[in-house]
Amino acid sequence: PEDTENNSRLNLPADAIINLDHGDPTMYESYWRKLGNMCTVMFTGYQSLSYFANSKNLCWFLEPKLEEEIKKLHNVVGNATVEGYHIVVGTGSSQLIQAVLYALSDPLNEANPISVVSATPYYSSYSEVTDFVRSGLYKWAGDAHNFDKDGPYIEMVTSPNNPDGVIREPVVNKAQGMLVHDLAYYWPQYTPITGPADYDIMLFTVSKCTGHAGSRIGWALVRDINVARKMVKFIEINTIGVSKEAQQRAAKILEVISDSCSQTVRPPELDNFFEYGQHLLTERWKKLKDLVEFNELFTLPKFPLQYCNFTGDFTEAHPAFAWMKCEEEVDCEKLFRGHKILTRSGKRFGSDPKYVRISMMSRDEEFDLFVQRLSSIHGIANGN
Amino acid sequence: PEDTENNSRLNLPADAIINLDHGDPTMYESYWRKLGNMCTVMFTGYQSLSYFANSKNLCWFLEPKLEEEIKKLHNVVGNATVEGYHIVVGTGSSQLIQAVLYALSDPLNEANPISVVSATPYYSSYSEVTDFVRSGLYKWAGDAHNFDKDGPYIEMVTSPNNPDGVIREPVVNKAQGMLVHDLAYYWPQYTPITGPADYDIMLFTVSKCTGHAGSRIGWALVRDINVARKMVKFIEINTIGVSKEAQQRAAKILEVISDSCSQTVRPPELDNFFEYGQHLLTERWKKLKDLVEFNELFTLPKFPLQYCNFTGDFTEAHPAFAWMKCEEEVDCEKLFRGHKILTRSGKRFGSDPKYVRISMMSRDEEFDLFVQRLSSIHGIANGN
Repeated sequence: PEDTENNSRLNLPADAIINLDHGDPTMYESYWRKLGNMCTVMFTGYQSLSYFANSKNLCWFLEPKLEEEIKKLHNVVGNATVEGYHIVVGTGSSQLIQAVLYALSDPLNEANPISVVSATPYYSSYSEVTDFVRSGLYKWAGDAHNFDKDGPYIEMVTSPNNPDGVIREPVVNKAQGMLVHDLAYYWPQYTPITGPADYDIMLFTVSKCTGHAGSRIGWALVRDINVARKMVKFIEINTIGVSKEAQQRAAKILEVISDSCSQTVRPPELDNFFEYGQHLLTERWKKLKDLVEFNELFTLPKFPLQYCNFTGDFTEAHPAFAWMKCEEEVDCEKLFRGHKILTRSGKRFGSDPKYVRISMMSRDEEFDLFVQRLSSIHGIANGN
Repeated sequence: PEDTENNSRLNLPADAIINLDHGDPTMYESYWRKLGNMCTVMFTGYQSLSYFANSKNLCWFLEPKLEEEIKKLHNVVGNATVEGYHIVVGTGSSQLIQAVLYALSDPLNEANPISVVSATPYYSSYSEVTDFVRSGLYKWAGDAHNFDKDGPYIEMVTSPNNPDGVIREPVVNKAQGMLVHDLAYYWPQYTPITGPADYDIMLFTVSKCTGHAGSRIGWALVRDINVARKMVKFIEINTIGVSKEAQQRAAKILEVISDSCSQTVRPPELDNFFEYGQHLLTERWKKLKDLVEFNELFTLPKFPLQYCNFTGDFTEAHPAFAWMKCEEEVDCEKLFRGHKILTRSGKRFGSDPKYVRISMMSRDEEFDLFVQRLSSIHGIANGN
C-alpha cells in the first residue's frame, strides 16, 4: 500500500495493454514522490543562456556541479574509479555510444569501416545506433563470438548485460581490439558491487541509476584525453552540448542519492536509495520466480550469490530486465502479445525468438497486472 | 546603464580576448534578468521520469505544453504557418538538421549518398554536420551555385542567411530537389516579418529566438507525415528523445514571450520581447555602421527597408551577425585575432578569407570592447 500511495495512479483496466518492451524506469517514482520537495530545482529565466558551462574544461558544456556529483557518487557507491579519468556528459548514453564509436574510429583513417561487435544476447540498440546513418567509420558486425577479422575493432562489453543481467568480460581478445564498457546497470539495486571498475572507457546513465530517463543525461569516464576530446567534438557537432537544465537537475538528484547513502548526512526521512531500489526489485523477482518455478513453459536465468561491497551482504543480482525463455518451440514475444503484454523479442538481441526481454522497472500496477496474467499462461497445448 | 545593471558583470580587463566567433546569444540576459521570477520553472524529484512525454503523439517525446506554446508564438509573430504541420522537437536545430537529412535520404535507397548543398556563404556547420560520420546516406556537395548533378539532392535554404543576414530563395531549382528551410533567424528582432512562411520543412531554434542556447531546444514544422515520422525515428535512435526539463522550461519562456507581445495579457513591467531585442540590435548596428562608414578598410552588407507585419513599421534587418569584408588583401580573421577579437573566417562559410562573421549577440561589455578596438584598426599600411 505504501508504494501505491506514492505512485501516480494509472487505474489500468483489467484488459489494458502492459508495455514492458522499453526499459522505462518508472518504478522509482514512488521513491522520489516520498521526498516531496527535497530535491526540487528551480530555474529563473536568466540562467544558463550560454552554450558554455565551463569554457576552461575539456568538456566545455559539462556543468561543474554535475561533474562534482558524478565523482562523489562513484566514490560513495564504489562502482567505478574516477581518479585519472575525464568526464564527458552526453544526451543519454545513446549519444555517448555514438561519440565513442566516432572517437575511436575517426583517427584511424581506415579505408573500411571499423567493425563493432558485442556478444549475443546484446543490447538491441547497438546495431541500430551503429548503422542508422550508414557511417563509413564504423559498422555493426554482430555477435562477438563469431568475429574473426584482423585489424582494429570495437567490442561493446555490457556488464551487467542488457538483456540478461550477466556480468561480462570481453570475448574477442585480439590485439587491435578497443573496448567500451557499458556499465549502465552496475549499480547496487541491480547487482552486487564487487569493486570499482577501472576500464579505459566506461558509460553510465542517469536513466538506469536514478530513474530519470526523461532528462536524457549520461556520462562517460574516459582515461585517454584524446578519446575524451574527440567525444566532446562529436557531441559539439551532433547537438552543440547537453541541456543545462537537465544537467543541473541530474546534479541535484545525484547529490540527494549520495546523501541518502551516508550515515552522517542522511536525514531520517530519507531511505537509502539503492537499498530501496534493491528491495523493490527483490520483491518483484521473488514474485516472478515463484510463478515461473511452477510453470513448465518458462525459465529464468540464475544468478550467483556474491559479496556486495556496498551493502556488505551476500546478494544475488536483481536485474532491470527478466530474460525469459519459453521452453516450447514458440515465438515468445507473440505469445505474450496475445495476452496484451508487450515485451522485446530475443531476435532483437541477436538471439532466439524463444526468448523475450521483460522490463522489471515498470510501475507497481503494471508489474502486478503482468504477474497476474503470467500466472494464467501455461503450455501451448493448454490452449494459451 | 540599465542594460549594464541587468547583465551579469564580466569585469573584462581592457586587453581581454573577446570571443565573437560563436553566436552565443548572451545579449538577451538583460531582458530575462529584468523579469526576475516571472518565468521561473520548478522541477520536483518525481516529475518526468519516463522517456515518454505523450505516447499518443507522433513525436512521442514532445511535451504537450511546448507544442502548444510553439504554435501560439508562431501565430502571435506571424512568421510561420502551423496549421497542417507536424511539430518535431530536437536537441537544438543541429540535431534537427541531421534528422532531416536522414529522413529525406534514407527512404530513397540510393546507391550513392545524396548531395547536400547550400549557396555560399553558407552556415559553417552544414558541411561538418553532414560529413562528420561519413554517412553513406548523404554527403556535403558545397556551394549550391555550382551544383549540376542529376538526381535527388537536398538544398539548405537559410533565411535570413547565416552569416550574412540576406533573405534567400533556393538556387538550384531542379526537379528532384528537396528543400530544407532553416529559419532560425526569421524573428522580428533580426529581420522584418513579411509574412508567414509555409515551406515543406522549416527549422527553428530557441537559442536564436529567445537566447536560451544552453537549453538545446529546436523544433521543426514538417508538412509530410512520413518525413516527420522518420525525423522522430532519428531522434529516437540518436538520443532517445529530448530533455523534458529543457522542453518544459522552453515552453514557459515561449509563453512569456507571447504574453509580452499581447496588448491584453502583457503586464506593464513586461517589455515586448522582440521590440526589446530589435532595439538592442538596432543600437549595436548603428554603432558599428557609424564606425565602419569612416573606416576605408571594412564594409558591411546593406539591407533594404521592408514592411514588417509584426511591428507595423518599415524596418531594416539587424542581423545576429555582421558579415564584414576587409577591402585589402588580408586574412580578416587573423587581423582581428591580432587585436584579441575572435571571429569566424569567411573560409568556414565557403567564402573568402577577406570576410569574417562577427556575433552581434554578445553581452554589452564584450560588444563595447569590440567596437572600441575596432575603432583603432585602420589600413594595414598604417601598421595595424
